[in-house]
Amino acid sequence: MSYFDAASAAPLHPVARQALQASLDEGWADPARLYREGRRARLLLDAAREAAADAVGCRPDELVFTSSGTRAVHSGIEGALAGRRRVGRHLIVSAVEHSAVLHSAEVHETAGGTTTHVPVDRAGAVSPSTYAGALRPDTALACLQSANHEVGTEQPVAAVAQACRAAGVPLLVDAAQSLGWGRVEGDWSLLTASAHKWGGPSGVGLLVVRKGVRFAPQGPLDERESGRAAGFENIPAVVAAAAALRAVRAQAAVEAARLRELTDRIRTRVPELVTDVEVVGDPARRLPGIVTFSCLYVDGESLLHELDRAGFSVSSGSSCTSSTLTPSHVLKAMGVLSEGNVRVSLPPGTPSEDVDRFLSVLPAAVSAVREKLGAPTAPRTASAPSGALVLDALGKLCPIPVIELAGVIGGVPVGGTVRVLADDEAARLDIPAWCEMRGQEYVGEEPADRGAVYVVRRVS
Amino acid sequence: MSYFDAASAAPLHPVARQALQASLDEGWADPARLYREGRRARLLLDAAREAAADAVGCRPDELVFTSSGTRAVHSGIEGALAGRRRVGRHLIVSAVEHSAVLHSAEVHETAGGTTTHVPVDRAGAVSPSTYAGALRPDTALACLQSANHEVGTEQPVAAVAQACRAAGVPLLVDAAQSLGWGRVEGDWSLLTASAHKWGGPSGVGLLVVRKGVRFAPQGPLDERESGRAAGFENIPAVVAAAAALRAVRAQAAVEAARLRELTDRIRTRVPELVTDVEVVGDPARRLPGIVTFSCLYVDGESLLHELDRAGFSVSSGSSCTSSTLTPSHVLKAMGVLSEGNVRVSLPPGTPSEDVDRFLSVLPAAVSAVREKLGAPTAPRTASAPSGALVLDALGKLCPIPVIELAGVIGGVPVGGTVRVLADDEAARLDIPAWCEMRGQEYVGEEPADRGAVYVVRRVS
Repeated sequence: MSYFDAASAAPLHPVARQALQASLDEGWADPARLYREGRRARLLLDAAREAAADAVGCRPDELVFTSSGTRAVHSGIEGALAGRRRVGRHLIVSAVEHSAVLHSAEVHETAGGTTTHVPVDRAGAVSPSTYAGALRPDTALACLQSANHEVGTEQPVAAVAQACRAAGVPLLVDAAQSLGWGRVEGDWSLLTASAHKWGGPSGVGLLVVRKGVRFAPQGPLDERESGRAAGFENIPAVVAAAAALRAVRAQAAVEAARLRELTDRIRTRVPELVTDVEVVGDPARRLPGIVTFSCLYVDGESLLHELDRAGFSVSSGSSCTSSTLTPSHVLKAMGVLSEGNVRVSLPPGTPSEDVDRFLSVLPAAVSAVREKLGAPTAPRTASAPSGALVLDALGKLCPIPVIELAGVIGGVPVGGTVRVLADDEAARLDIPAWCEMRGQEYVGEEPADRGAVYVVRRVS
Repeated sequence: MSYFDAASAAPLHPVARQALQASLDEGWADPARLYREGRRARLLLDAAREAAADAVGCRPDELVFTSSGTRAVHSGIEGALAGRRRVGRHLIVSAVEHSAVLHSAEVHETAGGTTTHVPVDRAGAVSPSTYAGALRPDTALACLQSANHEVGTEQPVAAVAQACRAAGVPLLVDAAQSLGWGRVEGDWSLLTASAHKWGGPSGVGLLVVRKGVRFAPQGPLDERESGRAAGFENIPAVVAAAAALRAVRAQAAVEAARLRELTDRIRTRVPELVTDVEVVGDPARRLPGIVTFSCLYVDGESLLHELDRAGFSVSSGSSCTSSTLTPSHVLKAMGVLSEGNVRVSLPPGTPSEDVDRFLSVLPAAVSAVREKLGAPTAPRTASAPSGALVLDALGKLCPIPVIELAGVIGGVPVGGTVRVLADDEAARLDIPAWCEMRGQEYVGEEPADRGAVYVVRRVS
């Protein structure tokens, strides 16, 4: 079994396991107490804070441990917004942030604030000048991930931080995906991270607030962690998280080069091995271990099942996966195909042979799904050789509308159109993406009583 | 070293340690994923939920795991209040709830809600009829702990739950101190608890919301744990928490009887061994392992240090402990002495000999502190034999004002008064308590430019 979903959660690092077990005996007591067990717990907590601060590149008193990366994001955003309430209630996020950031923005809007979503290019990155253009006199906070969790693309954090600093706006960096690989460069103001992404245990996040940044913790008062993270500290987990961070950092340069070679191999080989595939994300400015691609005429959930049966654990941003009904907002913001989406995120230590084995089983897995769905192997002749064919795909979920479109396009004359009537949200993304991949013209979308009509003109 | 502060945090139970180690291999992946590692994690999480629900006496789908007991309380109160916003914005709490409840009430008030604090008797318990009298047509939520965390007194939860049910008001029970000992009886609606109180790891709380209770989770959307506890689940810790709960419950009846005998011993012997001591809390309706007493003319922090040196870890509700500046709100609400306060909370398994050793070192520890502070051993003759002596104790911290009062009271004639000018918050509690213990009359409090004047009449 090969686990290729490190971007969701990495297996516990051996160093984290040792640290966890060692600190179970010393780290269970209340670090606020003055007796011996409390003092021991406090020493462990202080040492973990120093180690984590050193890895982040901040002062220990700027860093608190939260109960998860999600909590760090929620608390960081609401605290920073509240701290600058007098300046204004405008928030900036990129369109491809983690849902923890986007859901925080929704709460902010419900409470009367406004949010600007900065768009990304087709590789998933914001442009520093576009981001800077979103800054306003009433901007209370700007948020930007260090690197994207679905496609691995690195964001221009240092340049955006510089623009924010010039405007006097604090920048919160969600460094969940990158902190194990290195410090976040640039003059950022707040930073969040999640230990189980770098091989630490679950239940530990980091929230860093630079000295001088206005910050007003929200929610009920709680004295622990400088009033920024309510609840009794989980010291053994915190110690394990800090130890794992130090351990992965020690190997980061070597391991990054090795994993980059493996993901480069996937980026190159997948389009050679599988037809109608789009590899997404920036080919160069990206995290070492993540590579993402989408397969036409495939539904993500079926492909995940095929790969699971073949011994590979990967994830998908397709709308067809069980936990979501809409396609990944990241793929949507990038304007790339979402159907048959697969994210491969290699944990440190992944053997080269596992990647080769993945490449060897992928073509059959994709073919199996396509065959089951009746995907086109060659353009079919449609029964209605008219110049304006209507395809009713109402009630059909991705990738069926695209499969049916591919099946009929050959039946209209060059210059003629197919009008696809569909109500699956993924169609809005996947039909234009299909047109781009197949060299057909996407004319546009028209309203319909149910769903929408997507108009495609046959060009070739 | 004897650790007598189980009410703060219990050492990790051996069963919890085993369960934690065993689930580190299987429980690190994302339980929302469909691949093998995710399915294994989901199985562990589901099994832990069933075990915890069985211990609570609820359905598994009524119970979610939070990142701490504090978070369970915060989320439970805000979700229940929001769910019944249309009914009204009145909240009821007892005056002796944990600070997590009281701080949630403060947030509610800041947001425009109102709170009734139900008083307690001298033993620390609410009266069911007084509690019922606080219910109003606009009451959205009522909160009552199952047992008090500082003095161990059990609350009449079943009777209060019945009154709440009759009024159609949900009752949230903070069961942090009692859940290890047994289910909470009565028809409550919501329940919270904290695993590290029963020997589970830190970082795990429980929030139970009975079916049919209106509940609207607040904060940013997050799909985990039915939308009621944001952040990636810490499954190994959750598994360990559930295993420990099951293990302590299996021994609860036997261990409760044994610890009750030990705390009875302390309740009986301490007043025999130490002069000027008040044992507080209900002598019968109480948790098995907790006993609390206060010592006149002693400051809590010094006594904790003496006991720590003698090998005992206890905590204190005195204002003199380093982490607080005001005396315990629990002791204040009970109207009992706060100075020289010691809470002994025995972990399951505490050997009988450790308690005997504690009783053997306590008198010397108290004497050492009293001697250092110049506490009276016998009434002294004051220099001012007038009928209305004024004692200026401004700027002096507890227990100095009381020590000085005791030093001068013998110098005023019977029927005469001492007017104590003091600005330490603890004086408001400790001077009346001293009067009651020494058979003197507490006349009342008068305003002053700085602090207040506490008037005491010599009766005997």
